[in-house]
Amino acid sequence: MATEAVNVTEETEHMLEKNLIRKETENMTSSSDAKEMRAVILTGFGGLNKLRVTKKTMPEPQQGEVKIRVKACGLNFVDLMVRQGNIDNPPKPPLVPGFECSGIVESVGENTMGFEIGDRVIAFVNYNAWAEVVCTPAEFVYKMPDEMTFPEAAAFSLNFVAAYMMLFEVANLREGMSVLVHSAGGGVGQAVAQLCSTVPNVTIFGLASCFKHVAIRDSVTHLFDRNVDYVQEVKKISPEGVDIVLDCLCGENTGKGLGLLKPLGTYILYGASNMVTGETKSFFSFAKSWWQVEKVNPIKLYEENKVIAGFSLLHLLFKQGRCGLVRTVMDRLFSLYNQEKIKPVVDSLWALEEVKEAMQRIHDRGNIGKLILDVEKSPTPLMASDSTETSEAGEEEEEEEEPEGDNDNDKERMPFIQ
Amino acid sequence: MATEAVNVTEETEHMLEKNLIRKETENMTSSSDAKEMRAVILTGFGGLNKLRVTKKTMPEPQQGEVKIRVKACGLNFVDLMVRQGNIDNPPKPPLVPGFECSGIVESVGENTMGFEIGDRVIAFVNYNAWAEVVCTPAEFVYKMPDEMTFPEAAAFSLNFVAAYMMLFEVANLREGMSVLVHSAGGGVGQAVAQLCSTVPNVTIFGLASCFKHVAIRDSVTHLFDRNVDYVQEVKKISPEGVDIVLDCLCGENTGKGLGLLKPLGTYILYGASNMVTGETKSFFSFAKSWWQVEKVNPIKLYEENKVIAGFSLLHLLFKQGRCGLVRTVMDRLFSLYNQEKIKPVVDSLWALEEVKEAMQRIHDRGNIGKLILDVEKSPTPLMASDSTETSEAGEEEEEEEEPEGDNDNDKERMPFIQ
Repeated sequence: MATEAVNVTEETEHMLEKNLIRKETENMTSSSDAKEMRAVILTGFGGLNKLRVTKKTMPEPQQGEVKIRVKACGLNFVDLMVRQGNIDNPPKPPLVPGFECSGIVESVGENTMGFEIGDRVIAFVNYNAWAEVVCTPAEFVYKMPDEMTFPEAAAFSLNFVAAYMMLFEVANLREGMSVLVHSAGGGVGQAVAQLCSTVPNVTIFGLASCFKHVAIRDSVTHLFDRNVDYVQEVKKISPEGVDIVLDCLCGENTGKGLGLLKPLGTYILYGASNMVTGETKSFFSFAKSWWQVEKVNPIKLYEENKVIAGFSLLHLLFKQGRCGLVRTVMDRLFSLYNQEKIKPVVDSLWALEEVKEAMQRIHDRGNIGKLILDVEKSPTPLMASDSTETSEAGEEEEEEEEPEGDNDNDKERMPFIQ
Repeated sequence: MATEAVNVTEETEHMLEKNLIRKETENMTSSSDAKEMRAVILTGFGGLNKLRVTKKTMPEPQQGEVKIRVKACGLNFVDLMVRQGNIDNPPKPPLVPGFECSGIVESVGENTMGFEIGDRVIAFVNYNAWAEVVCTPAEFVYKMPDEMTFPEAAAFSLNFVAAYMMLFEVANLREGMSVLVHSAGGGVGQAVAQLCSTVPNVTIFGLASCFKHVAIRDSVTHLFDRNVDYVQEVKKISPEGVDIVLDCLCGENTGKGLGLLKPLGTYILYGASNMVTGETKSFFSFAKSWWQVEKVNPIKLYEENKVIAGFSLLHLLFKQGRCGLVRTVMDRLFSLYNQEKIKPVVDSLWALEEVKEAMQRIHDRGNIGKLILDVEKSPTPLMASDSTETSEAGEEEEEEEEPEGDNDNDKERMPFIQ
């Protein structure tokens, strides 16, 4: 139910012709039918073949919500976990994935304060971001700085907020400290590196695949190949260890990370990308990983003066209602952006239809910075030729065609795409 | 080896007559032989009967050390754990217990900078504090504020430094937060309460035995009896939980404490007083408690956005070499003391010969604030009549008189004193 002032539910086409939005949207590959939109659909949990681009009824803003014409969406490792069903209480598919986007306010629901049509915004969405239009409560929406592009904005929200909160809310980063970050070349890794550089004299130890080293060398103090024994390498440089370890891998790394901490140091687990195994039926591999994670005895922490923390921004936002705190953090980050102290690193832009290739790239850790789904982008012909398609039907048929069991040979050859 | 300027090894008596120390020490119940001193000795791990006051050779300061004529010593729960052998790698008895004292600098070792004879000081000592004289490295010694009494000083060091570091170094206490503290009436509990009151709008939930409630009511916001289900009581007042839980009990409380945390909240284990069981042969009860402590899965922390930390000031000082940080903290605390924002709460003063009664009091959690061993105090006749004695010999004989096995009836009747 839209309010009178923003009652654009029935007049979207009309307004698009009349106001600023027109300029922003005239090049958009929008659906010819205003009530429908393109969206990425996950038809069931599993491999890349569970993803389709299809038409879907366009949502309308409920009370307190903002309706956004999406320009760009962030693609994160957690989206791979969602695809495989490797998360707690996933919604029932079919679903539209995606937790963050940038775009333009197209209308607002009843009693929605603080936003006007045409506002350029960043938004968190509890699923449904990978579509031409999303609706999300106003408490998850933030006005973008004028200088920020839409891809930058979509690369900004989850990564920089997570990095900031881990460094300054959980771990209390201060002058002269040292930080170890896994996946230093990824979206969060690059955000961590930039935020560390806002504090004097912080040493950053980064792990990344060798081929990224030239590109990210300047962003960290010491860079190691992700295949080396980083514990030994770090201790060669800093025998007493580091103050903060940021780990998105989980599994065996917990013990290693704790072992690398100085007294009063903080280990933060903020992801579990090692749980994305590339297997079709991933529930058991997930459960196995869960139990295999080394449990921590609090008395050991007491003896060693150590801190272990978990951080999930999505849970904080969508399960734990800490929007107010996140807004404070976002304001500080916008200020740092406006001072040109931080700038999101965009790895690459992908059409919605290219979501499979984009996912494969993040799975293979080929990215430096953030992968962005650019809603207005057309698939590049070469990449579209072999594996992207827009399918509105036929999902059941394809599911039946899949082998139910895993073919180990296939898995080894193609660990991710089935 | 003392330096020339402070070469008082052979001339202690002479200097005592000549300088300011004389006034401080003339009422002291010092040994008639300058080379001997009174000290509390733990003859072996076990019950109270392992404690004696005896004569011991007076230590002389080594290079970098300060020799202190002790005025007052702090008695902490950890001393009970030491007595029972419930700590990691305890030194071999016989030993002199005690980790903190206040007193007057009597001499300094070679290359010892920053202290002069006659300085009033607080010191951390890695054992040996419960004696008339101690020597400890200068990095563990701090000049006392002029207004501070010796008992206050001995009540200050471990408790306030631990409370400060937990609240501000580990947990990052800020305006508007809430803190739950077990043993709110104890030395650390009272330090926590006072330090919380230096931050605007902090809510303190305290647990304490009922009989302490009148005395400590004003120091905390909400006070609960230690026998109630505090989880339920806290949630009635603050349904979303608290920001910081400080737990010195360990055991089953870890899970409860974590359950009470808000998202981004911090649980800190800083002691394990539940491990002091009152049993004679405590090794097995200790081992049992260790294994019974609920282990924490890092992924659970990730899902719940929680932080778990351990804090041991003694390990930080004596095993992990963080004296510099502790000195910074001590300076801040002295500043707060001089501003009259904090003031150590002394529960009671005890002669060295009364150490058994003092230990029983802390074991029974009868204290409000800190128990102090006052080196110059004479035992009160009533209390001295039944269980205190100064023994210089006969330890072996008495040990042989002890029953090796536990008498369960005796244990129930007198859980602590055998």
